[in-house]
Amino acid sequence: MYYLGIDVGGMSVKVGIVDEKGNILLKDKFETGRDRSYEEIIRDIGEFSVKMIEKSGVGMENIKSVGIGIPGTPDCKNGLLVYANNLSFRNAPFRADLKKYFDCPIYIDNDANVAALAEAVAGVCKGVSVSMTITLGTGIGSGLVIDGKIFGGFNYAAPEIGHMVIVQDGYPCTCGRYGCWEAYASATGLIRMTREYAQRFPDSEIHRICGGDLSKVDARTAFKAKRAGDFAAKLVIQDFTKYLATGIVNLINLFQPEVLAVGGGLSHEGDYLMDDVKKIVYSEIYSKDPVPQCRIEYAKMGNDAGIVGAAFLGL
Amino acid sequence: MYYLGIDVGGMSVKVGIVDEKGNILLKDKFETGRDRSYEEIIRDIGEFSVKMIEKSGVGMENIKSVGIGIPGTPDCKNGLLVYANNLSFRNAPFRADLKKYFDCPIYIDNDANVAALAEAVAGVCKGVSVSMTITLGTGIGSGLVIDGKIFGGFNYAAPEIGHMVIVQDGYPCTCGRYGCWEAYASATGLIRMTREYAQRFPDSEIHRICGGDLSKVDARTAFKAKRAGDFAAKLVIQDFTKYLATGIVNLINLFQPEVLAVGGGLSHEGDYLMDDVKKIVYSEIYSKDPVPQCRIEYAKMGNDAGIVGAAFLGL
Repeated sequence: MYYLGIDVGGMSVKVGIVDEKGNILLKDKFETGRDRSYEEIIRDIGEFSVKMIEKSGVGMENIKSVGIGIPGTPDCKNGLLVYANNLSFRNAPFRADLKKYFDCPIYIDNDANVAALAEAVAGVCKGVSVSMTITLGTGIGSGLVIDGKIFGGFNYAAPEIGHMVIVQDGYPCTCGRYGCWEAYASATGLIRMTREYAQRFPDSEIHRICGGDLSKVDARTAFKAKRAGDFAAKLVIQDFTKYLATGIVNLINLFQPEVLAVGGGLSHEGDYLMDDVKKIVYSEIYSKDPVPQCRIEYAKMGNDAGIVGAAFLGL
Repeated sequence: MYYLGIDVGGMSVKVGIVDEKGNILLKDKFETGRDRSYEEIIRDIGEFSVKMIEKSGVGMENIKSVGIGIPGTPDCKNGLLVYANNLSFRNAPFRADLKKYFDCPIYIDNDANVAALAEAVAGVCKGVSVSMTITLGTGIGSGLVIDGKIFGGFNYAAPEIGHMVIVQDGYPCTCGRYGCWEAYASATGLIRMTREYAQRFPDSEIHRICGGDLSKVDARTAFKAKRAGDFAAKLVIQDFTKYLATGIVNLINLFQPEVLAVGGGLSHEGDYLMDDVKKIVYSEIYSKDPVPQCRIEYAKMGNDAGIVGAAFLGL
């Protein structure tokens, strides 16, 4: 049997036919078109998916379920997309509208949650009873999986780990609060800190790398400069490491996952970043030996986590 | 049928016979004796409980299960107390050692977790799928209940919400970190802040109430002084309210319980405190309308939550 996974993003909609182990038989995508109406997008999702199933030769009767990952808050029970920051529509009845295309169960959940499900079933958290996957990108996304099931709270809106204040009255966050973890430990936070240090130290390597044009600073600038021995970059990464570790310790104290999987662009810095993060984490966590310890690993499902995790909603 | 609930504290061990609705048929307690060995304490627990059951007339055959709440980290699967800050022993085999007294299943869990279970089954969180109970006392305790079951993470050590840093590099916490929520929003945190303001403002009502002796400041001092119109107390409570709200918003963003029950000594200030906390919380939470909202309520199981919740472990 196969499972259809649909990963709805603000930029593109990715669709894939997936087996129960997470192997992708076929995948493709189309542009979401942010200005388009819900009716246009849902029609495209339906027709595109049906064509893909035809093309695959699998046959509609062998598609056990359809799963949809959405960039916002779902109503999993009623199959709705309640609210999405990057999409213009609210309370969109995805399940009801896709029923005309498919004769099988249709599931919906948040995109970060389904990515965590992908890691839990087929990725680095396989075989683990409680796991959390965090994605360090422009923002910080996350999902918690307990005994094979996504935990989203009573309203399917949890866990918004990026919007946990770690610096009371700190830097303003896009959510309206001050001092959220996301404002410090995301790529956006790192870029801001890199710019601040580049401005403060015009003779630094980070300043030189971007040719004095701070708009050219990206999430790699400080790491590149630190590898070249730059003193200012060292300070940036030291701060960033501290904030990242603070949030991770908080999460471990709060959720105690057996594995905390770290993914997203910033995780590609690998041990160069995470070794220092782990040093702080394991010295600060509340429940020490003889209490069993959470392991910090790298997420491994990559860009396909959205498709595969959405497909796994039907497992 | 009845359930035996045992609430093991650093000061006393409370034992009660409870029905499935949370009514207590009989209860009593004895002193733990912090310097005593595990062997002495476990023998007392067993003998005291057996005598109580005899005295109650219920009959051992009508005791369906025994539940134990402990002030530390349990191993629920193997029936151990792994580690407790206030008790001298580690990896104590409670279940194995109590088997000689009881011929029924024996369960063990953390005391804050069982208090949350009491609220979820018979208290203010009754009928709710996801609920969290927080206790604002000397420290901050908490428990999360999902679909009638306690969530403790893979190692039964979650959720340690008091040890979530909300002020990076802030005030030192007993756990070794800096800026934990517990260092600000517990009675201990409030007393510290009250003292700081009393010291800063010798002409304040808070200074007058304690007769200039700062060791006499308690968790009520600032509230009393604020009610009397004191300007310094107003500042203390304003700060305290802000920190308390920050942590509650974090918890809602992270866990999305349908009900967040607030208990412990500080909750007795009631709406005088919580109305202002709620104002901040509902303006700051991430998932706003049309996403359904968490309700903040007062815990109602009081001092019996430990006995009743422990008893409910066998439900």
